[in-house]
Amino acid sequence: MRGRGDRLAALVDERGLDCLLVSDLVNVRYLTGFGGTNGACVCAPDVRAFLTDFRYTERAAVEVDGWEVVTVEDDWLGGIAARLSGRTGYEDHKMSVRTKGKLEDKLADGVVLEGAGGLVERLRRVKDEDELAAIAAAAELADGVWRWSLERGLTGRGEREVASAAEARMRELGAEPSFPAIVAAGPNGALPHAEPGERRIGKGELVVFDMGAKLDGYCSDGTRTFATGEPGERARGVYELVRGAQEVALAAVRSGARGEDVDAVARDPIDAAGHGDRFGHGLGHGVGLEVHEEPRVSQRSEDVLQAGEVVTIEPGVYLPGELGVRIEDLVVVTEDGHRNLSGLPKPLQIVD
Amino acid sequence: MRGRGDRLAALVDERGLDCLLVSDLVNVRYLTGFGGTNGACVCAPDVRAFLTDFRYTERAAVEVDGWEVVTVEDDWLGGIAARLSGRTGYEDHKMSVRTKGKLEDKLADGVVLEGAGGLVERLRRVKDEDELAAIAAAAELADGVWRWSLERGLTGRGEREVASAAEARMRELGAEPSFPAIVAAGPNGALPHAEPGERRIGKGELVVFDMGAKLDGYCSDGTRTFATGEPGERARGVYELVRGAQEVALAAVRSGARGEDVDAVARDPIDAAGHGDRFGHGLGHGVGLEVHEEPRVSQRSEDVLQAGEVVTIEPGVYLPGELGVRIEDLVVVTEDGHRNLSGLPKPLQIVD
Repeated sequence: MRGRGDRLAALVDERGLDCLLVSDLVNVRYLTGFGGTNGACVCAPDVRAFLTDFRYTERAAVEVDGWEVVTVEDDWLGGIAARLSGRTGYEDHKMSVRTKGKLEDKLADGVVLEGAGGLVERLRRVKDEDELAAIAAAAELADGVWRWSLERGLTGRGEREVASAAEARMRELGAEPSFPAIVAAGPNGALPHAEPGERRIGKGELVVFDMGAKLDGYCSDGTRTFATGEPGERARGVYELVRGAQEVALAAVRSGARGEDVDAVARDPIDAAGHGDRFGHGLGHGVGLEVHEEPRVSQRSEDVLQAGEVVTIEPGVYLPGELGVRIEDLVVVTEDGHRNLSGLPKPLQIVD
Repeated sequence: MRGRGDRLAALVDERGLDCLLVSDLVNVRYLTGFGGTNGACVCAPDVRAFLTDFRYTERAAVEVDGWEVVTVEDDWLGGIAARLSGRTGYEDHKMSVRTKGKLEDKLADGVVLEGAGGLVERLRRVKDEDELAAIAAAAELADGVWRWSLERGLTGRGEREVASAAEARMRELGAEPSFPAIVAAGPNGALPHAEPGERRIGKGELVVFDMGAKLDGYCSDGTRTFATGEPGERARGVYELVRGAQEVALAAVRSGARGEDVDAVARDPIDAAGHGDRFGHGLGHGVGLEVHEEPRVSQRSEDVLQAGEVVTIEPGVYLPGELGVRIEDLVVVTEDGHRNLSGLPKPLQIVD
């Protein structure tokens, strides 16, 4: 992970900073490999320092690569402050106002803090081969859990029961859920962030089934909408609308495409069908160490896709009181298109 | 939960504030009952406003009690800012520097933000009857999981295997782990924050087994140290030292006792036995909606225990490269002592 520190140092310099303090633990993990619960990095042209406390000294010695490991004794913020110099960037989008104030009290003369949150997140957008392999493995594991879930059947089971069983299956396979699985049937499918409840899944209903696995720190994310028996004309119509929207959006993904434009490609046919106001979320988002990260593929996004980014493409239509459809793939952006990490079929599957 | 808003309003007034913004989701849940992932409260003498976005309007109508539910449309921080007035306290210990800056940009004339983090945490210290019942139920469920784990045996199993099975059992019983379970055998027991690894538990080892359940939002926390066969004189000596320290500390718990003093009661016999530097953490902490909350029962604590608080009492001795012992109960502070929520026996249990 030495290269990550070097790339960060270049961004720090580009920003006109003398030094950067990274305190967000996900960012710290990305830079150093450290997986414990207390750590921070200081990055400057000649400095790659990872700081932790005595509880994690041994662990850091094993996990941290390319950074000097420093054990801070009693005074955590004081130990950090002692390593900072000049114009020091810090993660203002994560650090609390109180912590920043306490840190400021401990700074040496000549050190000033300057909000610079987001630099590591920018690096995290483009994944390297190891990261892509980890995400692909998580996605493949999740695909297996969908198949396993369908073998057990959906009809007559409770939403929460199906979701919990899928999460337990992920854990059996050595992963964990990257977020609480969503199983939302019939009218519940119209609530895009529904928590699975006690409601039993009926016959002939659409079932939105959204889940992801986390494996070796990396997340997957995907959604399929299944039908428990023939759902009827109207439901099929909505399904095909969303499926078509997803297909054209996938075809628009490539390095250099603007997130906003890819979103519009999916939104246009849904608008044209009169359901524009029933697609109330962005088309997609980056996935990596976190299940929601940069870039954004949405109406107000200013992000431009780059090769090596991993994003979801997940249009949906939600008809209140009636049904919901969402179809979500996880794809790697490539120079001339995308590589799809989701292996589940796209035509409407009628399941038990 | 109406009483909580009123008690908070009294603290806001006592602090000389016109109004308080509560943005931490655990605090919001405590005040309102709301369990979703986006919400905030504004509390002033005549205002009890709960704000959320359209995704949660329906859920809030069901869950939120005693607060006016306001759905903020597009501009979340703007919607919040519009409800604030005069000297407004905010949770500076949680809010990021960047969010605070964006919020400030949207304030009306005459509204000023003032750091006031910790007011809701202060209310959360003393639990009401419903909260005590929820915590007791979580503790009882966890006790059952320890017994279930021991029935399956420890010797020859991997630490991680035992920990994962216990977590899965909690989920089967409708709870979830309040933190990742710790199972640390032999020399690993000397690392107080060990992550369970692949190491198999040997015969005649001490096994530190620390876990908690979360049920209906409330946490439990407890630890027992078991022996897989006769562990020998020295291990028994350390065990009895810790057990004795825990007993005298429990006897010192009562309303009005200082956290620092209760800690010292446990630390004194361990010091006297020459292991003072092998008890490298505080004696205990509050438990409730979070598994670590106020009050602190530790060397530097200025907290004074009050009836209705729930705290852990968990002395430990850790001999590097050799073994660790920790014994942790969860107790309710009462006027003249405590009520113990941990039902597991305290004498060293020799298990398979």
